[in-house]
Amino acid sequence: MDTTTQTASIDTRQTNPGVELDLPKIQPLVQPELDTEVAGLLASTRYPRHALGRVESLLQQMARIQHAPGQAFAGIALDQPQLLVFAADHGIVDEGVSAFAQETSRQRVEEVLLGVAPVNTLVRLHGFDLTLVDAGLAQRLDRPSGTDEDVALLPRKIGHGTRNMVLGPAMPLRQAIAALQAGMDVVRHLPGRVLAIGDIGVGSTACAALLLSRLCGVPLPDACGRDQEQSGGLDSLRRQHRLEKLQLAAARHRKAVTPLDALAAMGGFEIAMQAGAMLQAASERRVVLVDGFVAGAAALVARGLCPAVSDYLVFGHRSTEPGHRLLLIHMQAQPLLDMELRVGQGVGALMAWPLLQAAQALLPIQRQVT
Amino acid sequence: MDTTTQTASIDTRQTNPGVELDLPKIQPLVQPELDTEVAGLLASTRYPRHALGRVESLLQQMARIQHAPGQAFAGIALDQPQLLVFAADHGIVDEGVSAFAQETSRQRVEEVLLGVAPVNTLVRLHGFDLTLVDAGLAQRLDRPSGTDEDVALLPRKIGHGTRNMVLGPAMPLRQAIAALQAGMDVVRHLPGRVLAIGDIGVGSTACAALLLSRLCGVPLPDACGRDQEQSGGLDSLRRQHRLEKLQLAAARHRKAVTPLDALAAMGGFEIAMQAGAMLQAASERRVVLVDGFVAGAAALVARGLCPAVSDYLVFGHRSTEPGHRLLLIHMQAQPLLDMELRVGQGVGALMAWPLLQAAQALLPIQRQVT
Repeated sequence: MDTTTQTASIDTRQTNPGVELDLPKIQPLVQPELDTEVAGLLASTRYPRHALGRVESLLQQMARIQHAPGQAFAGIALDQPQLLVFAADHGIVDEGVSAFAQETSRQRVEEVLLGVAPVNTLVRLHGFDLTLVDAGLAQRLDRPSGTDEDVALLPRKIGHGTRNMVLGPAMPLRQAIAALQAGMDVVRHLPGRVLAIGDIGVGSTACAALLLSRLCGVPLPDACGRDQEQSGGLDSLRRQHRLEKLQLAAARHRKAVTPLDALAAMGGFEIAMQAGAMLQAASERRVVLVDGFVAGAAALVARGLCPAVSDYLVFGHRSTEPGHRLLLIHMQAQPLLDMELRVGQGVGALMAWPLLQAAQALLPIQRQVT
Repeated sequence: MDTTTQTASIDTRQTNPGVELDLPKIQPLVQPELDTEVAGLLASTRYPRHALGRVESLLQQMARIQHAPGQAFAGIALDQPQLLVFAADHGIVDEGVSAFAQETSRQRVEEVLLGVAPVNTLVRLHGFDLTLVDAGLAQRLDRPSGTDEDVALLPRKIGHGTRNMVLGPAMPLRQAIAALQAGMDVVRHLPGRVLAIGDIGVGSTACAALLLSRLCGVPLPDACGRDQEQSGGLDSLRRQHRLEKLQLAAARHRKAVTPLDALAAMGGFEIAMQAGAMLQAASERRVVLVDGFVAGAAALVARGLCPAVSDYLVFGHRSTEPGHRLLLIHMQAQPLLDMELRVGQGVGALMAWPLLQAAQALLPIQRQVT
C-alpha cells in the first residue's frame, strides 16, 4: 500500500539554502472493490442504470476518500462539516487590476467576523463551522465589536499583503513554503470529514489567472477573459489595462515554471495556504469541497505538488470568472453547480453542500430497495 | 390589473359537444418596481455587480411570483413546501417503447408509499409534504401494509392507463380535460407557497418526446435522442424500434396540433394533471418547482394553454433524457441543476430545493450589509 502513496519532499536547498518543503503523504484513490460495492448498493431493477447520475459518481468518490483500502464500507460521514476561509491582500492591486480598493478585503473579512456576510448565512443554514484565517491581510485585523462568536479567527499572517509582482516576486520562496505549511497546520486541528475551502482578497483573481496560465499553458488573455465577459469586476478599458499589467508580471516571472516557483512569484498567501490545506486534508482522507476560481488555482498548485490530491477534490461550482471554466477543464473536473456566482468566501462551495447531503442520504435507501 | 390577466375558456364544444375547459386566471409577472426593490436589497458596494449570479434572478422571480403588484415586499415565503407526484400508466408501453414492464409503475409507486423510494429520502431531508396522486395507473392501487403515514395518497384515477396511441388517441378529450381539472383541484387543497411537481409512470418519456416534437416543432428523432444517448433506458436496437413506433403515433395524430388536442392524442393522465396543477399553482401565485422531462412536457402543455404560467416555473434540473435539453431551450429555461438524473418522482426538483432556501436566506443579510 505504501508503495503507491504519493509523497514528496521538494528540495529547494540548492537555490534557497535552508528552505525545504515537506509534503504530507496522499494515497491515490484506486479502489475497484469498493467501487463495485457502492455500485451494488446503488443498482436497482426498478430504475434505469445510473438513475441517480452524478449523485452516484459523487457517492463513489466520497466512499473512496473516506475508506482506506481493506476497510469495510460503512457509508459516508458528513458530520461536523468545516469551512475554512483564507484572507490575504495582493500587492498587484497597486497596478489597478481590480475594481476594488485593497481596503475592501479587510471590510469583507470584518463582515464575516460580524456574521453579516453572505457566507455566514449559508454557514448557519447548513450547520458548518467557520474558521477565518488571516493569511496575510495588508492591515492589522482586530475582531470588530459585536463580532459573531461562532466564527473562529486564526491569525496566521505571513506578511502584510504580498509584494507587487510586476516589480518582483509576490513573496520569497520561504514565505510560500511557510504559507503552505500554515495551511496544513490549520487543517490538522480541525474535526470533521468534509472541509470546504474558500477565500477573500482583492486582486486574487489576477493571481489565479496568472497561475492558470503558467501551470496549464492557457494563454493569459483567455485566463483573464476576453470580450463581454467580466473579470475582476472591470469594464473593457480597465480589463485591457489589467491584461497588460498581468502580461508584464508573467514576462517578469517567465522562469517561474514549477508549481512552487509560480506560487511564490505570482501567487498569494491565501492561495498558498489553501493549497497546503487541500494537501493536508487529502492526506487525512477528508472530502475537500473547493469554492471558486481562486480556490481552484490553489488546487492547481496543490496538484502540481502532489497529483494524487485531485482524487479528494469536489468542485462546488463554476463561477462567472472566464478562467474558472478553463481551470476546471484542466482539472478534468465537473463542478456541482453553475450559478454564475462571483462572491468568493466559500459561498459556492456551501451552496453545493446539500448535494453531498442528498447523496449521503440516498445511499442507505438504495440498499433497502434493491 | 385585471386587464392584463391571462385567462381562457377553451371552447371545445364545436367538435366535442358538452366539453369545455375552464382555465384559472394567471397574472403575467411584470413588476419593474419590485425588481428594482429586490435589486436594491442585493446591491452591495463590497462585491461586483450581480455577485450572487443566478441566485439573484431566482430571488427576483420568487419575489415577483409571491407579491402581487401594489403589495409591499416582505421577503420570500418557503414554509410548508409541497411535493406532488402524479402516477399513471401508458398504453403505448404495449409497443415495447420502454425497458420496463408496465407493472413497474405500480411497484415504484408502492415504494414511495412504503417510504423507501429515492424521493422519500429527499422529502424527509428537506422537510417536504409528499402527496402521491394516482392519476391513472393500470392496476388497482391499494396502500401496501407498513406504509409511510407521511405520504398522502390521493386516488384520482381517470382511467386504467391510457390507450395505445399507435392505435388511437391516448385518451378522449373529455378525459384530458377531466385530468387537467383534477390537477387544478388537487392544488387548491394544498398549503404552502412552493409546489414541486414530479411523476411516475413507465412509458411517460415517450409521451414527453411526442409532445415536445409536436408543440415545439422538434424533429422526433431529436426529441427521442440519437447516437449514444439513452432514452427510456434502451439499447440502440430497441431505441430504433421505439422511434419507429413513436413516428407511427405522430403520423396517426398529425392533426392534433393544439396543446389540448396533442395532450389527449399523445399525452398521459399524469402529464395532464401536472399541467393542471401548474396552472392552478400559478393562478395562486405559488412558486412551481418542475422536475424532469415528463414534468417539463406538462409545462409545455400548460404554457400552450396559458403562456403566463411560464413566469411561475422554476426548473429544478436537466436530466439525461436528450429531449429534456431541447425542451428547456424551447421553454427558455435554465435549470438549477445538471446532475444527469433519470429517476423521476420529483427527485431532481427536491435536489434543487436547497438553492431556493439559500436564495431566501441570502436576501435579508444583503439588506444588512448594503
